[in-house]
Amino acid sequence: MSETYDPDTLAQAVARGMTARDNAAQAMGVEIFDVKAGSAAARIVVREDMLNFHGTCHGGLMYAFATSVLAYVMNGDNRAAVAQACSINYTRPAQLGDELTARCRAVNQAGRSGVYDIEVTNQKGETVALLRGQSSKIKGEAVPGLNVEFGIEGMG
Amino acid sequence: MSETYDPDTLAQAVARGMTARDNAAQAMGVEIFDVKAGSAAARIVVREDMLNFHGTCHGGLMYAFATSVLAYVMNGDNRAAVAQACSINYTRPAQLGDELTARCRAVNQAGRSGVYDIEVTNQKGETVALLRGQSSKIKGEAVPGLNVEFGIEGMG
Amino acid sequence: MSETYDPDTLAQAVARGMTARDNAAQAMGVEIFDVKAGSAAARIVVREDMLNFHGTCHGGLMYAFATSVLAYVMNGDNRAAVAQACSINYTRPAQLGDELTARCRAVNQAGRSGVYDIEVTNQKGETVALLRGQSSKIKGEAVPGLNVEFGIEGMG
Amino acid sequence: MSETYDPDTLAQAVARGMTARDNAAQAMGVEIFDVKAGSAAARIVVREDMLNFHGTCHGGLMYAFATSVLAYVMNGDNRAAVAQACSINYTRPAQLGDELTARCRAVNQAGRSGVYDIEVTNQKGETVALLRGQSSKIKGEAVPGLNVEFGIEGMG
Repeated sequence: MSETYDPDTLAQAVARGMTARDNAAQAMGVEIFDVKAGSAAARIVVREDMLNFHGTCHGGLMYAFATSVLAYVMNGDNRAAVAQACSINYTRPAQLGDELTARCRAVNQAGRSGVYDIEVTNQKGETVALLRGQSSKIKGEAVPGLNVEFGIEGMG
Repeated sequence: MSETYDPDTLAQAVARGMTARDNAAQAMGVEIFDVKAGSAAARIVVREDMLNFHGTCHGGLMYAFATSVLAYVMNGDNRAAVAQACSINYTRPAQLGDELTARCRAVNQAGRSGVYDIEVTNQKGETVALLRGQSSKIKGEAVPGLNVEFGIEGMG
Repeated sequence: MSETYDPDTLAQAVARGMTARDNAAQAMGVEIFDVKAGSAAARIVVREDMLNFHGTCHGGLMYAFATSVLAYVMNGDNRAAVAQACSINYTRPAQLGDELTARCRAVNQAGRSGVYDIEVTNQKGETVALLRGQSSKIKGEAVPGLNVEFGIEGMG
Repeated sequence: MSETYDPDTLAQAVARGMTARDNAAQAMGVEIFDVKAGSAAARIVVREDMLNFHGTCHGGLMYAFATSVLAYVMNGDNRAAVAQACSINYTRPAQLGDELTARCRAVNQAGRSGVYDIEVTNQKGETVALLRGQSSKIKGEAVPGLNVEFGIEGMG
């Protein structure tokens, strides 16, 4: 009965349900916040095990972090979606201990397909990466049997 | 004195030097192999901590895995390079326990900029993702003070 | 009754049907050739009216040329398809009078979505651009009422 | 002596100088307007000779139109720049007679490399395409011998 809730409340409930089962985001230490219908944010601290041989944050893990928040935005209406394609431009290296924030917003929806922009900034507000993702709706719910009223805190 | 060695030998020596310091690739369990000048391959097994809330391999970690091998190819001449941009098309989900192979090859070099293609396949030989990366040469060596003759095994 | 023909013959018939109605490709002087199921090629000569203010071939028109052949490959089974996304890497400028060849091949098909690679080379065989396109099947036929046996020459 | 002018005035003077020599944009009927430092817009009407075999605007020409305005933004400081890579997401077809507007803005500058976003909308304000371009500064001026004070009208 998702459709009886306002879109922001629904998106936050979906995010709570997703978080509990999102092993990869947990393992990376990703914290999701500011979830609304069509947008969300995430935070991470660059750890030792995220460094590449240059001694800076592995570009692949920066991408993994940034697309973690994408998953929350594209599934925010609880209609399951997957990323179909994504591109990233790296604009500045991130260092050990940097606190990175990724902000994602839906840019366009057309049929089953959506386009999303994500900006990753460091603790100084400098842009470190820009992503554009494309999603495709698949069958099923993002969080099957979602209870929107369960767990009213967090994510908002 | 890198330039006195044949390109494949050099690329393999660089890869050995990089591997020792590549925290992120180690943490993901990435195994690099088949290193040549202009190409390399990598292997990974999808672990529990790589799954997303759908229960399939997190698309961001698949990207992180795939671009790990890119780093070895674009630095294979020991002139330091970084990824400037990259795009990925997801063609099939990967499951827990899947053994993924990423094969990267240099497609074009123009000045300081290179273009690379990476294909990720599963243990059945099915394509799970296609990436195209763009590199930029920066100052310095990938492995400063590289000893090409040290550690003659592995990587090849 | 497309399905009674072998895939290459079908692709060539579709190409003939498309060519007749492809205003944009005609206006650019695009010549389609080597059409098979899953691949095709195109040729163009860089004209005065294709130059940008640098005096080289406008990158947008190079893209337009390259994606003209993409249309033929992704519609080659006569199930109508449109480009959903595409990316291009420019590797070398093209000059007035250059003869450019674009070769496109299908790289992956998954459900209604396909991935295609296109390489554009000049008359010296040098790569001038690399494209990767993503298609989506839509309803209908590429060439409604296609007569596969009409016009048996050309395109092959 | 470009550096003695304010950035918007400079960008507009560069645009006037570029327009006079931009064969491709002229041939497509592209009208550049709203030029500032870091942003610009362009207008086009979809003509018969821009239609593909589906009878809608050729996606390649839509890209060519959209990247025409990119050229003005990335060269707006009169330091010559070229597009190194670009990606496009198509969100809606454009029809014969549609008036399309492309708005481009600089999103990031890092060293010689810039990232730009372009949105193409139709006369109803609907998004038809989203582009992200990456530029690289090359040697020389966009408009050699630019006279900033010549032709004080237009472009602004």
